Amino acid sequence: MAGVDIGGTKILAGVANAAGELLSQDYRTTPVEAGSDAGIDRIVTSIERAAHGAGISPSQLSGVGIAIAGLVESETGVLHTSPNMPGWKDVPIRSLLGSRLGLDIYVINDASAAALGEGCYGAGRGVANLVYLTVSTGIGAGIIAGGRLYCGANGTAGELGHMIIEADGPPCACGGHGCLEALASGTAMAKEAISRIQAGARSSLGRMAGGDIDNITARHIELAARQGDGLAQGVIARAAHYLGLGLANIVNIFDPELIIIGGGVAKMWDLLVEPAIQRMQARAYALWHFRVRVVPAELGDRAGVLGAVAFVLQHRSAEKGQ
Amino acid sequence: MAGVDIGGTKILAGVANAAGELLSQDYRTTPVEAGSDAGIDRIVTSIERAAHGAGISPSQLSGVGIAIAGLVESETGVLHTSPNMPGWKDVPIRSLLGSRLGLDIYVINDASAAALGEGCYGAGRGVANLVYLTVSTGIGAGIIAGGRLYCGANGTAGELGHMIIEADGPPCACGGHGCLEALASGTAMAKEAISRIQAGARSSLGRMAGGDIDNITARHIELAARQGDGLAQGVIARAAHYLGLGLANIVNIFDPELIIIGGGVAKMWDLLVEPAIQRMQARAYALWHFRVRVVPAELGDRAGVLGAVAFVLQHRSAEKGQ
Repeated sequence: MAGVDIGGTKILAGVANAAGELLSQDYRTTPVEAGSDAGIDRIVTSIERAAHGAGISPSQLSGVGIAIAGLVESETGVLHTSPNMPGWKDVPIRSLLGSRLGLDIYVINDASAAALGEGCYGAGRGVANLVYLTVSTGIGAGIIAGGRLYCGANGTAGELGHMIIEADGPPCACGGHGCLEALASGTAMAKEAISRIQAGARSSLGRMAGGDIDNITARHIELAARQGDGLAQGVIARAAHYLGLGLANIVNIFDPELIIIGGGVAKMWDLLVEPAIQRMQARAYALWHFRVRVVPAELGDRAGVLGAVAFVLQHRSAEKGQ
Repeated sequence: MAGVDIGGTKILAGVANAAGELLSQDYRTTPVEAGSDAGIDRIVTSIERAAHGAGISPSQLSGVGIAIAGLVESETGVLHTSPNMPGWKDVPIRSLLGSRLGLDIYVINDASAAALGEGCYGAGRGVANLVYLTVSTGIGAGIIAGGRLYCGANGTAGELGHMIIEADGPPCACGGHGCLEALASGTAMAKEAISRIQAGARSSLGRMAGGDIDNITARHIELAARQGDGLAQGVIARAAHYLGLGLANIVNIFDPELIIIGGGVAKMWDLLVEPAIQRMQARAYALWHFRVRVVPAELGDRAGVLGAVAFVLQHRSAEKGQ
């Protein structure tokens, strides 16, 4: 089986066995500017190389899972829009790759794939009910319910980054306002820092970003906070507050056994996630919020590929009526 | 099979077949003041009467489902707290009824039961992925995922009424702030109306409530709005706004095929739910929000009993490994 994780910068293809062991990997850049036709070409090449790396021909693969950032309709395998690849609109990935490779193709959102990867092979092994949240420039998520990925009617369930938690909050990339992503993502933190500096607050962040505050990133904010910068600390505290409300909602909505947090921003665990967990415990309704474990993701960059593989396996077991 | 719906005012027991046809019903008041022991006695009597009404002895029942308002741990069958029955705390309903009746007992939150009832026998027949929302004095909900009730790790998933959608919003009965229930329930509407009148706004609501504004209910607000009362109309518009944001979150989180809305307040469909649906369509992220159907519940008072019966069936099929 092969899994492919397609992001705005790289394509990572891997061949794995059902135990989630990667037998080979192929890594190449995403031809974002060249459009989707060139992208499909490169995905095919990447899958072929990964298969050869595992010592088999591509035709011997028992299925290919494709994890991709954007609004994906799993049933048809069509990618409708992708935030990182603006040229990819309504691309029928399943049928394009299927006819090129002669294999069964299963397409899934990348955060859903990472949830499934972590659930099957990472921090959520053996846990039936969990929510995976990835906090980076945006906020993505996936829901594992009863041991399976919950996809919803059109395959787009789990957009927890676009859960509104501040009705009239700041604008979000989705077109709405006050979504969790607009309040607690790396991008939200950078925007808040820039806005506070523009309002006249003092901070070391401008210098850290090379003198141009528009270059401030969450990584700068983390570094500045660790060096005692009050503005950076305040910005992280605000994001932690909203992340905590988001976690409280997740507990109230899903009653999960486990919440796994991945993504680059989650690396500031002590500064961001720990205070968010405290906020969640103060705001969650159910008695057993203290039972919920919140843990970091384990698979790193491999989560998408392994999740795409697990998605193929999940479909196969459903097709067998299991 | 029997199902029992236990609320703050009444106990309704019914015997049904697997097709969801009620063969008999028994209806009696809940002895709220007398505490849980007296309540258990009355539930036993009600089940016995319902069995006799169906022409069988209670011992011939193949299982009993109990739907009850409050925080229920389905695994153990313990009711931890109930908003309507303050004397019922940590009541081991499953074991108490099990030892009295010698039958298998399955305990479930009443909104979850109504979701399952509507999903199996009501407005959601044949739909695999749906969310049921009951809007009355509070807001409860249940999630049907892949044709089954999604219970979560402790049996308390689906507390969508306690989804925070306004981080610093008004206080909620759960102890939090800005929950959907605190913004869009009948109680929230009454509080908002009282607060606007106390702030000096003119309205016919005081007269309608017999001269005491503390007696204002959602029903008064509906009547006043239909008679052209601007304050009442504004209060409903505000609730519809927040209900719409809640629906947008539900679409983004669950990607359901169907949202079923029940409860007394939902009866003002044209005034409250229709504008809420428009708001949802404007705020939902996924492309296919227009595919989501939002429909009224069909089963009325029978939803809880039939859902409790369906919960027994769901457990039976899981025990058989189906």
